[in-house]
Amino acid sequence: MDIRALTFDVFGTVVDWRGSIAREVAAVAGRKGVTIDGPAFADAWRNLYQPAMTRVRKGERPFTKLDVLHRENLDQILPRFGLGGLDEAERDELNRAWHRLDPWPDTVPGLTRLKRKFILATLSNGNVALMVNMARRAGLPWDTILGAEVARAYKPQPEAYLSAADMLGLKPEQVALVAAHNGDLVAARRCGLRTCFVLRPAEHGPKQSTDTKAEHDFDYAASSFLDLADKLGA
Amino acid sequence: MDIRALTFDVFGTVVDWRGSIAREVAAVAGRKGVTIDGPAFADAWRNLYQPAMTRVRKGERPFTKLDVLHRENLDQILPRFGLGGLDEAERDELNRAWHRLDPWPDTVPGLTRLKRKFILATLSNGNVALMVNMARRAGLPWDTILGAEVARAYKPQPEAYLSAADMLGLKPEQVALVAAHNGDLVAARRCGLRTCFVLRPAEHGPKQSTDTKAEHDFDYAASSFLDLADKLGA
Repeated sequence: MDIRALTFDVFGTVVDWRGSIAREVAAVAGRKGVTIDGPAFADAWRNLYQPAMTRVRKGERPFTKLDVLHRENLDQILPRFGLGGLDEAERDELNRAWHRLDPWPDTVPGLTRLKRKFILATLSNGNVALMVNMARRAGLPWDTILGAEVARAYKPQPEAYLSAADMLGLKPEQVALVAAHNGDLVAARRCGLRTCFVLRPAEHGPKQSTDTKAEHDFDYAASSFLDLADKLGA
Repeated sequence: MDIRALTFDVFGTVVDWRGSIAREVAAVAGRKGVTIDGPAFADAWRNLYQPAMTRVRKGERPFTKLDVLHRENLDQILPRFGLGGLDEAERDELNRAWHRLDPWPDTVPGLTRLKRKFILATLSNGNVALMVNMARRAGLPWDTILGAEVARAYKPQPEAYLSAADMLGLKPEQVALVAAHNGDLVAARRCGLRTCFVLRPAEHGPKQSTDTKAEHDFDYAASSFLDLADKLGA
């Protein structure tokens, strides 16, 4: 294998979206005197993520960046959690919680090692501004931001993966996707990319039942980014 | 002013393309026993740069990344310099000299200071792979790579500048272009971006006669990236 670049799924693989969103909404609710189940709010918000992208994938609406989809989904769920009274500025600020997600403990040390040997790029459905702001806050050492907004296609559409390889000037087999999600890796492999599964057993909380192991014969399977660096000799 | 992001012209502003290409072609010619005027070769190659992009800008051919245009232009000039005998692999290797351009001495320390206060992105006509490889070699601390390939439009087309601001999630007036070229800055200003002229008096060699000063009332004019950092309080 001649892997030159590692591309990364981000939500769940690089950062803990559920814990971070739960923390942010709990702070907002606290200021409003509202009692809230933060993880349940995070799950409710995230549950509208795939359906919103599906409309774009099907061509029912033009490509729309994730910040906009997140905001539409937020407006839908706020009343259900007693936060329907948030004003425009408060909603925008909470929506930008996705720009402030915390990395897993092994993320930054793992990426730092991997960067010595490989080009590192995001390959996320998050938009460029979200990824840039997240990276600056969390210290994620990307060489560049690729993914849905740059490709104008949401994963798992093939264009998302193939555009990343093309923009890096590499053949698909010279690029690996690193992800905690079997479905994402299967789609990448179908495009000819190499595949690295990294286990994130707490992405969906203590009762997680999906993506608890590599379900296919991926090129690598690792328990953390540090374990992946070991396995890739970085 | 509320500048949040600095975007950078790269060829000439960030890196010394002329000196770097002259050095690379001199090494190739030396191995072939050919005597060459390196700077004249660099100038000849660069002289075909704007005409090649003009065909794309006019829609005479679909968007084509700069690595491809550079290679077509290289094939045109090699015979004139006694290097028509280079084979495919040698041509590809020389073409990638554009991925190995050296920064000006103030570039990396200046960018390092500017990054503490501003988002830093390229806004170059160079393609993503060229910019990523250059940045890794030279240690350029970009937050992300934007510009022609991502926008699918070559500067000075307005889409190139406006797409960069949009992808950063900012209004045009929250984004500044840093460039050593008056024409680039005028085009950016027409799109509503802020403008920072940085003098690069040796870009075209000792007899440079263009862009020897800021010819318009740009927001900032600086003698180096360190001077720009001083003026921007970074």
